[in-house]
Amino acid sequence: MATKQELKAFFQREFPQANFEIESAGDRSSQLRKLINNDHLRPGGTVSGPTLMAMADAALYVAILAEIGLVALAVTTNLNINFLRKPAADKDIIAKCQLIKLGKTLAIGDVFLYSDGDDNPVAHAVGIYSIPPNK
Amino acid sequence: MATKQELKAFFQREFPQANFEIESAGDRSSQLRKLINNDHLRPGGTVSGPTLMAMADAALYVAILAEIGLVALAVTTNLNINFLRKPAADKDIIAKCQLIKLGKTLAIGDVFLYSDGDDNPVAHAVGIYSIPPNK
Amino acid sequence: MATKQELKAFFQREFPQANFEIESAGDRSSQLRKLINNDHLRPGGTVSGPTLMAMADAALYVAILAEIGLVALAVTTNLNINFLRKPAADKDIIAKCQLIKLGKTLAIGDVFLYSDGDDNPVAHAVGIYSIPPNK
Amino acid sequence: MATKQELKAFFQREFPQANFEIESAGDRSSQLRKLINNDHLRPGGTVSGPTLMAMADAALYVAILAEIGLVALAVTTNLNINFLRKPAADKDIIAKCQLIKLGKTLAIGDVFLYSDGDDNPVAHAVGIYSIPPNK
Repeated sequence: MATKQELKAFFQREFPQANFEIESAGDRSSQLRKLINNDHLRPGGTVSGPTLMAMADAALYVAILAEIGLVALAVTTNLNINFLRKPAADKDIIAKCQLIKLGKTLAIGDVFLYSDGDDNPVAHAVGIYSIPPNK
Repeated sequence: MATKQELKAFFQREFPQANFEIESAGDRSSQLRKLINNDHLRPGGTVSGPTLMAMADAALYVAILAEIGLVALAVTTNLNINFLRKPAADKDIIAKCQLIKLGKTLAIGDVFLYSDGDDNPVAHAVGIYSIPPNK
Repeated sequence: MATKQELKAFFQREFPQANFEIESAGDRSSQLRKLINNDHLRPGGTVSGPTLMAMADAALYVAILAEIGLVALAVTTNLNINFLRKPAADKDIIAKCQLIKLGKTLAIGDVFLYSDGDDNPVAHAVGIYSIPPNK
Repeated sequence: MATKQELKAFFQREFPQANFEIESAGDRSSQLRKLINNDHLRPGGTVSGPTLMAMADAALYVAILAEIGLVALAVTTNLNINFLRKPAADKDIIAKCQLIKLGKTLAIGDVFLYSDGDDNPVAHAVGIYSIPPNK
């Protein structure tokens, strides 16, 4: 198990370029916030797909590490993402993850992504992480 | 239809941050090269998952635009990616895309991603793009 | 729009081999029940993967038809399914679908599948249906 | 490792209802043939999606068992399928699988599905199998 504070320190140290805020973590779930700037936009004034994919992947990782602790080198095995609506260019992206399986070797979760302040998700992802045996 | 030269100019203008080379485009396929630097690495000395996802998405986009031309605002609807092996930290990433369907409203393709010089793929993705009706 | 009664009559007429019960349909959701018999089992005494895939696909179809009516020839474009736990061999399978996008040309929903009486899902699927323009 | 003959005997004994022919197996690949009859059709005179999904899953299973032998209880973890074209109602379905990863705990492969005699695939699937540690 890892607390929100331990997770924050871990990501600042190990993924300084990740640049998101952990709003909550625990109970097989997580919520992240990404401040959107021009680097994340694509033509037409919308947040790029890869920015959303990266947030979905990160939300899964945070939810899993909150359960199994920071030791494990869990890695993404599969990510499936559906893009639902055009995100607003001037709003943060919020990612809400819920784990639907936490096994010994695999964890699976789904993630809804939102433009801050809008209840209609802009994307939905499901991901599988492999958990190494020697955790 | 768009040529490799037209595609290069388009991406330099519209996606200056994308920062990949189009090695080939046409015949319902594409090949891209991404120069890897420290920004793309994650702990353990490997290329980050989001970097691979972004390359898979871009390879699909290039293969589709090479067929339908630069006018269309094709957008990603779905991307499914499997991570197969740890990419080398000191090699470029090569993405090879082949379209398996090019319909009026949907295009579907698969992408193999490689560390330059190694025949074993590091990831495999399948993606769906929506093509707007008024192309 | 189609009511639960209209949907029942439609599936009995058009898909007599489908052999599931529509427990609810509407509000962008559906719930189906499949009576499991020996034909659906595989070695080890568990419900086969294809039986679960067929139920996920059907639950999406029912949820969509309940919204757009029985006229449309909506067809599955993509289905992504994760198998989470071994289903019980002697329990019905319950499929609960929620649409997360209902656009003019695409509908996307997710489905949790359960062994009747157990709150832990045995599988989770996300699917995309194409809706023909002349609906 | 398992030969084509051993695989045939295994499927006849363990999956008598599967009802497909193994045309080839080995070299990290497989080819299956399914004789289509009225049970597999849906309105509009086409092969049902679940029939295609079951064939994709089976082709992966055969390709994996050909490599790791019949002892292992490999199970499907994830299947992602894209439906590309309407299959012919009066042609067999051919499934061609190629493994793209064969690890100790996970195997991943892709499958192209065809109506017999047509080079354009009707569907494309990618699947992940879990291989139990005590194989």
